[in-house]
Amino acid sequence: MNDYSLEHVLSFTGIGETAPEAIGAVPEGIRVNFYNAGGTVNGPRVRGKVRPVGGDWLTVRADGMGVVDVRVTFETHDGALILVTYGGMIDFGPSGYQSFAQGEIPALARIRTTPRFLTAHADYTWLNRLCCIGIGEYRASTRTASYDVYAVS
Amino acid sequence: MNDYSLEHVLSFTGIGETAPEAIGAVPEGIRVNFYNAGGTVNGPRVRGKVRPVGGDWLTVRADGMGVVDVRVTFETHDGALILVTYGGMIDFGPSGYQSFAQGEIPALARIRTTPRFLTAHADYTWLNRLCCIGIGEYRASTRTASYDVYAVS
Amino acid sequence: MNDYSLEHVLSFTGIGETAPEAIGAVPEGIRVNFYNAGGTVNGPRVRGKVRPVGGDWLTVRADGMGVVDVRVTFETHDGALILVTYGGMIDFGPSGYQSFAQGEIPALARIRTTPRFLTAHADYTWLNRLCCIGIGEYRASTRTASYDVYAVS
Amino acid sequence: MNDYSLEHVLSFTGIGETAPEAIGAVPEGIRVNFYNAGGTVNGPRVRGKVRPVGGDWLTVRADGMGVVDVRVTFETHDGALILVTYGGMIDFGPSGYQSFAQGEIPALARIRTTPRFLTAHADYTWLNRLCCIGIGEYRASTRTASYDVYAVS
Repeated sequence: MNDYSLEHVLSFTGIGETAPEAIGAVPEGIRVNFYNAGGTVNGPRVRGKVRPVGGDWLTVRADGMGVVDVRVTFETHDGALILVTYGGMIDFGPSGYQSFAQGEIPALARIRTTPRFLTAHADYTWLNRLCCIGIGEYRASTRTASYDVYAVS
Repeated sequence: MNDYSLEHVLSFTGIGETAPEAIGAVPEGIRVNFYNAGGTVNGPRVRGKVRPVGGDWLTVRADGMGVVDVRVTFETHDGALILVTYGGMIDFGPSGYQSFAQGEIPALARIRTTPRFLTAHADYTWLNRLCCIGIGEYRASTRTASYDVYAVS
Repeated sequence: MNDYSLEHVLSFTGIGETAPEAIGAVPEGIRVNFYNAGGTVNGPRVRGKVRPVGGDWLTVRADGMGVVDVRVTFETHDGALILVTYGGMIDFGPSGYQSFAQGEIPALARIRTTPRFLTAHADYTWLNRLCCIGIGEYRASTRTASYDVYAVS
Repeated sequence: MNDYSLEHVLSFTGIGETAPEAIGAVPEGIRVNFYNAGGTVNGPRVRGKVRPVGGDWLTVRADGMGVVDVRVTFETHDGALILVTYGGMIDFGPSGYQSFAQGEIPALARIRTTPRFLTAHADYTWLNRLCCIGIGEYRASTRTASYDVYAVS
């Protein structure tokens, strides 16, 4: 087995706008767009805010899994902009597709993502070299997605 | 040679927010995000508005070509939501990279894109089956990108 | 309306291996991989061969449309290697999904793609700047896909 | 902090063909394609072989990081086909770009990937729901990439 370790890099919370934009049932699944209204970034190595831009262009598959497609931007306390992109999976449970088909979002869902970072700021270019995992959950009542991000090294 | 034809499906204009979000020089090129503040859709087969969501997560390459990565949503006059995603190329000229590196956006640039559409609205599911090209230009003074979209059949 | 023109750049034919690799029905559609056994490239601006590498990692959607995901490599008569990647749509007809579900490939299908090229060879770097369309068809009896590629300028 | 756990799902080794296909320096980095000649899959929950299809359409960035783009297929001992796709990062070190520019592949490189699985086989559809990490290394002398894959839950 190859050695590896996980290092906690940051945690962040994104807050969705009032309601997601439901495109509805298309051939690949149900498309729902969650636009990001901002949030916070805290952690051992990065802190600041989530800018109110971007969002998640989600596809909810027939098996209740949501395929994540996120683009957001972090702004650190010392002025760096960091582009954050990720795919991943949200588990809405076996009846997740039916819930979305009825216009309901499950109350709580587990999210596992694989974020990548791109920045031009010299103090943060180490982020450009990371492969990370995001351990998160989405809470519908507060429209918040919160994640802990670990670098896999 | 295989036969083909182009049919004009719609034209649309998107207006950018006050200024693009410049992430800056990263290993693949210069990243600049243009967030969409809304616009209009007119055309023989679809008309309505561009919702003020999404944008273009652009990468300006060293050769002055911009690689487009757009997600926006159309809302038709009769209430359909249409998810619009596209890649494509913007030609900023041989010195395009240097312009962006100095914080300047070339005044006028030709855009060629390949939009795809996804909708759940029964009157528009014919859009889901199309492969299209977008013939456009970006004008920095008004922060507008305008396109004519043709279905390739 | 914005002006545009189409220029024929090349035509090419790819031949599939003996049988496609059918992964089968997954949540997004039916996955079928067509591996490329080689082919030819002819045309006004590029000629040579398609190397026997890569293929199409196709998804056949419930509406009978195939979403193309191709990676192949051209080798020109004068020694340039050109990486060719494209998405696009294959129209298998309204019953296309059912055909694939029964292990049958429709005899003839129209393909519309949006190829991009990447090369390091100085005589061909003009290809890196193009946005193109591919007008093609797939013929199951000979396992050949043939395309005419036009630059959109 | 959100709870999480990692479970070892499988390990696999892929062997490259005689030499990678070097497209060379393009605007995003150096493109090199590693075609897969087959391999083995062993592990607590999946075992079988890697079919001799697909490969890695790698981009080596100016900062020495390789951006992975893999498609391969597993065939299990009991006849399931599993489509495996992943992105990820290979660290070739700060001089990695220069090595590839001179036609040399660094002897040993650490790979961190985020594989996803798609299968239609009823005994393995649990794989479709996973978000995973791959802990791997590439050894140039034997042209082998070996990975341990963990499900993130």
